[in-house]
Amino acid sequence: MTDRLRPEAPLGVFDSGLGGLTVVRAIREALPNEDIVYLGDNARVPYGTRSPDTVMKYALTCSRELADRGVKAIVVACNTVSSVALEMLRAELDLPVSGVIVPGARAAAIASGEAPVGVMGTAGTIASGAYTRAVAAQSSRSEVIGQPAPLLVALAEEGWTTGDVPRLVVRRYLSAFFGPDRGVAFPRDAKVGCVVLGCTHFPLFRELIEQELLDLGGRGIPVVDSAVQTAIDVEAFLEARRLKNPHPSGKLDVLVTDMPKSFAEVASRFLGDAITSVHQVDLKSSG
Amino acid sequence: MTDRLRPEAPLGVFDSGLGGLTVVRAIREALPNEDIVYLGDNARVPYGTRSPDTVMKYALTCSRELADRGVKAIVVACNTVSSVALEMLRAELDLPVSGVIVPGARAAAIASGEAPVGVMGTAGTIASGAYTRAVAAQSSRSEVIGQPAPLLVALAEEGWTTGDVPRLVVRRYLSAFFGPDRGVAFPRDAKVGCVVLGCTHFPLFRELIEQELLDLGGRGIPVVDSAVQTAIDVEAFLEARRLKNPHPSGKLDVLVTDMPKSFAEVASRFLGDAITSVHQVDLKSSG
Repeated sequence: MTDRLRPEAPLGVFDSGLGGLTVVRAIREALPNEDIVYLGDNARVPYGTRSPDTVMKYALTCSRELADRGVKAIVVACNTVSSVALEMLRAELDLPVSGVIVPGARAAAIASGEAPVGVMGTAGTIASGAYTRAVAAQSSRSEVIGQPAPLLVALAEEGWTTGDVPRLVVRRYLSAFFGPDRGVAFPRDAKVGCVVLGCTHFPLFRELIEQELLDLGGRGIPVVDSAVQTAIDVEAFLEARRLKNPHPSGKLDVLVTDMPKSFAEVASRFLGDAITSVHQVDLKSSG
Repeated sequence: MTDRLRPEAPLGVFDSGLGGLTVVRAIREALPNEDIVYLGDNARVPYGTRSPDTVMKYALTCSRELADRGVKAIVVACNTVSSVALEMLRAELDLPVSGVIVPGARAAAIASGEAPVGVMGTAGTIASGAYTRAVAAQSSRSEVIGQPAPLLVALAEEGWTTGDVPRLVVRRYLSAFFGPDRGVAFPRDAKVGCVVLGCTHFPLFRELIEQELLDLGGRGIPVVDSAVQTAIDVEAFLEARRLKNPHPSGKLDVLVTDMPKSFAEVASRFLGDAITSVHQVDLKSSG
């Protein structure tokens, strides 16, 4: 990487929409000094249902927008992009690029011990096999059981994160991680040693998922939050490259590709903090 | 319109994704002779969360693709496009253009009598006020009560159209059309005279919506299916322009802008019939 990278420069974070703000939230908690430029490509959301070629094209335009704004590193806060486009982005850009899958997979391989790793994600992330490959790279023992959970994305964006509907949806998805019911007196067999929140929307359901895991008989099964693990990973690579901002700052610029007003309203829930200004940008060759 | 329009030419139908196939289904039932070219712009789905400018740009590229394929008329099987882009498409194209909102609004104004019209749709369709304007144009008496119901789109695409989860979601959305609960012995007051399925995904929940309307105390409240009303409208304008295909045919070509394989699997549910071939197309200036 070039020596134009300065510790005072902001981190660039992007996602297909607003989910990546859960990653921004975790980074701000771990690294309060860092300035962040966040780009949500909500004109083209969701990426999870699109082909790898389309996702790569979109990811490159987002990354170039952030690079043009002088960021010192790019955090891909999107499981879909992290699963298909990281190597391409590293080849195309003269910047450190970090994704959300490897940090989550690393923590999951440790948390799961000898048992398989359970992963909830969008249909695209699960079908890509990205967590299966990333977990295999960390541990020769751990299998992955993937469960697509697309309704949790819609529920998060609708703001239905508590109550009967999300509870039933979470329960139905989690039941993929349990064996046949042997009756009330015997808890069902858990088939996994941990459950990874493999989509940036899912930290909004973390408590509900933990409760339902207990109710399904999964006592002691930890939930691994990819957003939190990514923040730990970002801190480590900034430290290793001497790129941590030594000065207190912590500014957040939020850029979107469509409808800044409605984005700000919903996005605050994902960030866990009020969002005061959102600017709209036009991406070059927005395909 | 030009005299190049031939009765034997196909109808062009487009939507942002696969929801418009419920409109194709209704057209095929009403007009079995007609050939149809269907275009699902699933590379850029959903339109419902995008700005009017973006939707107009997308709608124009879809319409031009169909016009280039020699269709005799265009049916916009998408509530979002119908709500913001019909006039623009009529001005830009030398073809008859029909949408899904006016036919639904016309039937609703009749069905609702003196009572307000209830409309369920995407957040974009409801926020646009398109049904409010279209109903007002049909009847000076009828108000509209709009209820965004985005989770029904996600449930339809996930295939969860029966059972507890869709029932609770439908019930929660429909409760917007009822007044305060006065106790078990007294049914709740219905505030609407009919409920319009104002999104092409919603016919998959028609029976569930009818059941839940009854359970909520809405006996006698009809459900108006915009897809069925659109087919009636298309038949009328083909008849008036002497453009009905006199020969038995009924071919269906399905075009998509991304991932033809996964589209075919889910799309059959919306069409109510097997889809044998889906071709991918690249739209010009796909912005």
